Amino acid sequence: MIKVTVWNEYSHEKINPRVREIYPEGIHKAIAAGIAGNGIQAETATQDQDEHGLSESVLAETDVLIWWGHLLHEQVDDAIVERVHQRVLDGMGLIVLHSGHFSKIFRKLMGTGCALSWRIADEKERLWVIDPSHPIAEGLGASIELEREEMYGEHFDIPAPDELIFVSWFEGGEVFRSGCTYRRGLGKIFYFRPGHETYPTYHNAEILKVIANAVRWAAPSAGTKPIYQEIPVSLEPIRSRPVSGGQD
Amino acid sequence: MIKVTVWNEYSHEKINPRVREIYPEGIHKAIAAGIAGNGIQAETATQDQDEHGLSESVLAETDVLIWWGHLLHEQVDDAIVERVHQRVLDGMGLIVLHSGHFSKIFRKLMGTGCALSWRIADEKERLWVIDPSHPIAEGLGASIELEREEMYGEHFDIPAPDELIFVSWFEGGEVFRSGCTYRRGLGKIFYFRPGHETYPTYHNAEILKVIANAVRWAAPSAGTKPIYQEIPVSLEPIRSRPVSGGQD
Amino acid sequence: MIKVTVWNEYSHEKINPRVREIYPEGIHKAIAAGIAGNGIQAETATQDQDEHGLSESVLAETDVLIWWGHLLHEQVDDAIVERVHQRVLDGMGLIVLHSGHFSKIFRKLMGTGCALSWRIADEKERLWVIDPSHPIAEGLGASIELEREEMYGEHFDIPAPDELIFVSWFEGGEVFRSGCTYRRGLGKIFYFRPGHETYPTYHNAEILKVIANAVRWAAPSAGTKPIYQEIPVSLEPIRSRPVSGGQD
Amino acid sequence: MIKVTVWNEYSHEKINPRVREIYPEGIHKAIAAGIAGNGIQAETATQDQDEHGLSESVLAETDVLIWWGHLLHEQVDDAIVERVHQRVLDGMGLIVLHSGHFSKIFRKLMGTGCALSWRIADEKERLWVIDPSHPIAEGLGASIELEREEMYGEHFDIPAPDELIFVSWFEGGEVFRSGCTYRRGLGKIFYFRPGHETYPTYHNAEILKVIANAVRWAAPSAGTKPIYQEIPVSLEPIRSRPVSGGQD
Repeated sequence: MIKVTVWNEYSHEKINPRVREIYPEGIHKAIAAGIAGNGIQAETATQDQDEHGLSESVLAETDVLIWWGHLLHEQVDDAIVERVHQRVLDGMGLIVLHSGHFSKIFRKLMGTGCALSWRIADEKERLWVIDPSHPIAEGLGASIELEREEMYGEHFDIPAPDELIFVSWFEGGEVFRSGCTYRRGLGKIFYFRPGHETYPTYHNAEILKVIANAVRWAAPSAGTKPIYQEIPVSLEPIRSRPVSGGQD
Repeated sequence: MIKVTVWNEYSHEKINPRVREIYPEGIHKAIAAGIAGNGIQAETATQDQDEHGLSESVLAETDVLIWWGHLLHEQVDDAIVERVHQRVLDGMGLIVLHSGHFSKIFRKLMGTGCALSWRIADEKERLWVIDPSHPIAEGLGASIELEREEMYGEHFDIPAPDELIFVSWFEGGEVFRSGCTYRRGLGKIFYFRPGHETYPTYHNAEILKVIANAVRWAAPSAGTKPIYQEIPVSLEPIRSRPVSGGQD
Repeated sequence: MIKVTVWNEYSHEKINPRVREIYPEGIHKAIAAGIAGNGIQAETATQDQDEHGLSESVLAETDVLIWWGHLLHEQVDDAIVERVHQRVLDGMGLIVLHSGHFSKIFRKLMGTGCALSWRIADEKERLWVIDPSHPIAEGLGASIELEREEMYGEHFDIPAPDELIFVSWFEGGEVFRSGCTYRRGLGKIFYFRPGHETYPTYHNAEILKVIANAVRWAAPSAGTKPIYQEIPVSLEPIRSRPVSGGQD
Repeated sequence: MIKVTVWNEYSHEKINPRVREIYPEGIHKAIAAGIAGNGIQAETATQDQDEHGLSESVLAETDVLIWWGHLLHEQVDDAIVERVHQRVLDGMGLIVLHSGHFSKIFRKLMGTGCALSWRIADEKERLWVIDPSHPIAEGLGASIELEREEMYGEHFDIPAPDELIFVSWFEGGEVFRSGCTYRRGLGKIFYFRPGHETYPTYHNAEILKVIANAVRWAAPSAGTKPIYQEIPVSLEPIRSRPVSGGQD
């Protein structure tokens, strides 16, 4: 059983009736309901909770964290970001959705500005599968079509992804690297573009399938945790050399 | 002409006579003298200077920054780190040497812990060229031999490098990814392992050649700076869709 | 159940008593016995069989093919190589061992010469784990030690691997990229260095664990097979343009 | 001075008046004229010449080979393909254009099928710059627009590129990885998508700029050629071990 925590800043739903209509219980509840089952158990956490709902004990029991944020990135406590960062390096999976590209945790893991260009114009997005044998693309056809979405356009200021799974086509003329994997420390990270709050993207069965696939891919492996330390006694003998020899 | 600033925390040279003997004017001066010429102009800066010697104007005129630090990483001002980070994203090259793996700027750019294992035992290091056609390896043979160096051993907690140029063999039994390139924003980054302060590594002609090669590789290109912005008017027409249609 | 076919040219065992002593039934039987179980079912095939033991039906039922060859690379039938190549592109996993670096199938998949330097001197090899969270490294410690092996040294003329899992240290002074993953078409490929025929490497429990891990990693996923075709009717409307307009 | 040979199968121009009108002297002459100057000297060669115009001496003096083929891929002599392949591994740059994705030389270097989907419908292509600081993108804006081109759509059956420089948007709804770099042996390879013969793509100044940039990027470096050989005497001493010890 993979334990997922779906985190949401949970702000748009409270202030925008259109968003509330689409996600009456919040984006987090829609995603959690949409991916639960088949070996995935999904809880939720929101920014307005104590410690943003991400206490040490919650994180310790989370195999994969899903992150949705937008308006309130700067109000996320740096100490919580540090805690999530450390958990990722220790092996927790992280799935960053849509406007989460500008979250503190994603920028901290990437080391870049993570900026992009954008437009909200009710336009069509089509996500093409670039890596068809990747487990994150399992069960999909050649592309996923979303009738209306916000546009994100290149250039996207990220490190070159370890693997590029999806590239989006937008009706208005742009393209975007929509599905990108990274490894940082022992943790696996997946950035997935779709999910503007005013569109019902997280009710789309294919989008939910991708997120569930990504959860399975990002779940921690049973690998060994490396030890970083001084090793005073060498594994192999070291020959003593007179200082006058060699390069000195 | 490529303008280089060689930055050094300049601490070991002041407190350890053995280091001072090897680098009487400091590691920074040895490197600057060793790479200057052939289109490279090298200045120096040290941590004890105002703004660590890295004022806005110094950075604005620096094409490639070389970084050597060890004991005083935590005393580097966060605001200066932020400034250097932004300059790298804007295109300045950065060469991080040896114990700089634990510097604030390198960890910020990598997003990982950057830890490793180590040993000081006067042991031999041999850096093998893994990518012989890479410009950073230009003019080298199959490997570089250093009669005595500190050992750094895997696992090294970095993102998988964009390009792996060198792997080190150590007499005591370890290996290490010794030459790694990364791109972050518009900036090129090269991590280069050798250079423990108690060995005359930065007087070695091949090591200096690698650093000079890396300076040329990391110098900013004349590419366009991307603009990240809202694009309210689409490049292509967007068809109006009734809300009842499509996925809604 | 993952179906594995372990393929061996099966020549050294017949002509060299020392090899026969280590592998009385052949390298293929030792590997098959060593990895079978825990969801892996292993059959064998040898070069002296009809169609080298790799008929269409055998390959059709093989999820992962393991390849060991050395003396007789040039006598492998090109038509069989073509058949194996096509099966890899269609999704079959391939694990290439040791001197298989020079096999027709590996060179055809890599596109490079796949040359390296070597020495047989009863020397120690230590394989360091470079990617500790990778499933191929599951259950290992920081390194694997082999008391005696043939040396393979860099430069190794391969494309930069998609993932670098192991780097070997050799007592005589060299390093080598010992565990490399590639994707070609829908197939996953793992090159794994150890296994000179005069050493009992394939009786080593850790080496067998790596091969079994690699089998699980390389097994075909349930992804969709892409269709490559003319698409005469566009998904989106294309505006007619007068020839005099635009760039013409 | 970088010496370029622009190779063309030179068939469409002879049989299709529309192509002849656009390229009266052939695609090869248009490209050669369009990139010559600024340190580039461009000759041409065509498939109908002796040895396809690619004699040993021509290749020996070619720094970068540009390849355009389509109808006659299968009639390219395997011995010439082998010769070009070897020259690439020895360091010659190779730029493969448009329908050259199915050429013998490109498939041999990639190891995959190199298939894709396509459509000819006079549709708009927009190539977005994904890697703005890469020398191949030097001097460009955010994208290049081609009023009419053939569509190539994903999935494109290539190895994941070392660097992804361009992604194309097509009016009809597809995307494509349009600019991909690879290293094979000592040679640098750039695949660049645009250039269907019935459109004036190789008269477009930005397309020519990309090709000229790619020539500069792919030109051989002055690096050392690796030697692959037996190394009977080890660099470091190897301790004799009794056979009864260790793993044996």
